[in-house]
Amino acid sequence: VSPPPFARVGIIGLGLIGGSVALAVRRRWPAALVVGVDRPDVLDAARTLGAVNVTAADLRSMGAVDLVILAAPVLTNIETLKRLPAAIAGNAVVTDVGSTKLAIMEAARDLPARLAFVGGHPLAGTAQAGIHFASPDLFKNRRWVLTPDGNSAESAVARLDEFLRALGAETCQMSAEAHDRVTAWVSHLPQLAASALMRVVGDAVGDEGLQFSGTGLRDTTRLAGSPAHIWTDVCRTNQSNVAGALDRLIDELQELRRSLDRPETIEGVFEASARWRERLPE
Amino acid sequence: VSPPPFARVGIIGLGLIGGSVALAVRRRWPAALVVGVDRPDVLDAARTLGAVNVTAADLRSMGAVDLVILAAPVLTNIETLKRLPAAIAGNAVVTDVGSTKLAIMEAARDLPARLAFVGGHPLAGTAQAGIHFASPDLFKNRRWVLTPDGNSAESAVARLDEFLRALGAETCQMSAEAHDRVTAWVSHLPQLAASALMRVVGDAVGDEGLQFSGTGLRDTTRLAGSPAHIWTDVCRTNQSNVAGALDRLIDELQELRRSLDRPETIEGVFEASARWRERLPE
Repeated sequence: VSPPPFARVGIIGLGLIGGSVALAVRRRWPAALVVGVDRPDVLDAARTLGAVNVTAADLRSMGAVDLVILAAPVLTNIETLKRLPAAIAGNAVVTDVGSTKLAIMEAARDLPARLAFVGGHPLAGTAQAGIHFASPDLFKNRRWVLTPDGNSAESAVARLDEFLRALGAETCQMSAEAHDRVTAWVSHLPQLAASALMRVVGDAVGDEGLQFSGTGLRDTTRLAGSPAHIWTDVCRTNQSNVAGALDRLIDELQELRRSLDRPETIEGVFEASARWRERLPE
Repeated sequence: VSPPPFARVGIIGLGLIGGSVALAVRRRWPAALVVGVDRPDVLDAARTLGAVNVTAADLRSMGAVDLVILAAPVLTNIETLKRLPAAIAGNAVVTDVGSTKLAIMEAARDLPARLAFVGGHPLAGTAQAGIHFASPDLFKNRRWVLTPDGNSAESAVARLDEFLRALGAETCQMSAEAHDRVTAWVSHLPQLAASALMRVVGDAVGDEGLQFSGTGLRDTTRLAGSPAHIWTDVCRTNQSNVAGALDRLIDELQELRRSLDRPETIEGVFEASARWRERLPE
């Protein structure tokens, strides 16, 4: 076993992602110390699952750490980021796992040089949230996007990259702007569409009507079970990209609505759509 | 083995549904004769799979049958329906498996009394179309909606019901109007939403951007692989219900778009949606 790139890892927010990172670190480097910060009941669960060695009720009692992972909803991560300089005495690499990157990269510019921030976003998830669904294998062969900017120290990027690859992730780098633009389409828009669809269908037909649904509605709305509080922050911190994507989807639905009696238009949409669907990665 | 409710079953259209009915009949009643009508290449496949005993290039060469199952796209079924009186000499029960019911029920009013029509719709499907994905178990424990009207002979309804239950389906009855209203929401709207979503996302980000998608986009757009020609007929024959459902979804997306900076509105939609999602049947 090679020495851990970080000896003491502080994870703030032990949900599905934070909990899975904790479990993966504990398995990969038994000598590394994982310090968890969350609500008391979540910390109890994390201890029981063997995800953390040390628990802390707040930032200040976290003690010395050389890697900080912000794993709460985006706006909470940004608030925590602002409190890090007062809470951590020494040097540390700081990263996050949030679904939007521009807002936190901007907030990180105010950090002192001893706290080297590199934004991150693992493209991994499950239908269900919370540490009870966490797994040390969650990141295996999944992309983990890093969004360093001119303020990110090269050595911090390299160390974090080594750390994430050792957890099984396939790291890649892009700008925060490009990240937020593409995820608005491939992640945030599908989430909003699934939630809107499930809401209007349920309201329209009720429990009785839902009995006539099949695997189609079930698959299309799987995301509708996602926790709301994570997504409100995503919407707020990626407003203009998400608004543009929603506008385009609304236009397309209006075009379909106008074309219900025009088979060639409907076919055009279906065929373009089926071609893209075949090209989705496995 | 009880005697088959129908001794000679003609199936016009051997796709996923027609092919699965053929396989189920052949397994359940080895003594019954299944006559398939479709294009030559599909008939070859059906013979190879053991789905049919007899193949016919057209309606007139189908010979005597006591049950006719129309299993092509809806508007093709309606055209075939009009040609049945000239093609079939004796008495028969006639049904269909189309996704909309009002249009075909209206067309069936012109049939002579010896051809007793009962509309039907199995709520079963797979992601992939065509006889190669057909299975004799496709209907097991799945709903099969029958939509008899004042013109449907009671004895025909009872015989068809017995036949479908013997294939494993859970039959139920409702009016064609109620069927088309509820399926516009639970089936047709999700299909159009999935196709529109996949099309706009693919057009916006291209192959490169799709590499950053995960299981969320994959699940939400699973229906986007559905064959276009089936859905153009559904849209045409259920226009007003589908238009109303699309309008409501568009309104909801516009409300979300206006509320990206209002967490309480986003949370309201997500929470209503998550509650409905939990109530979907397994």
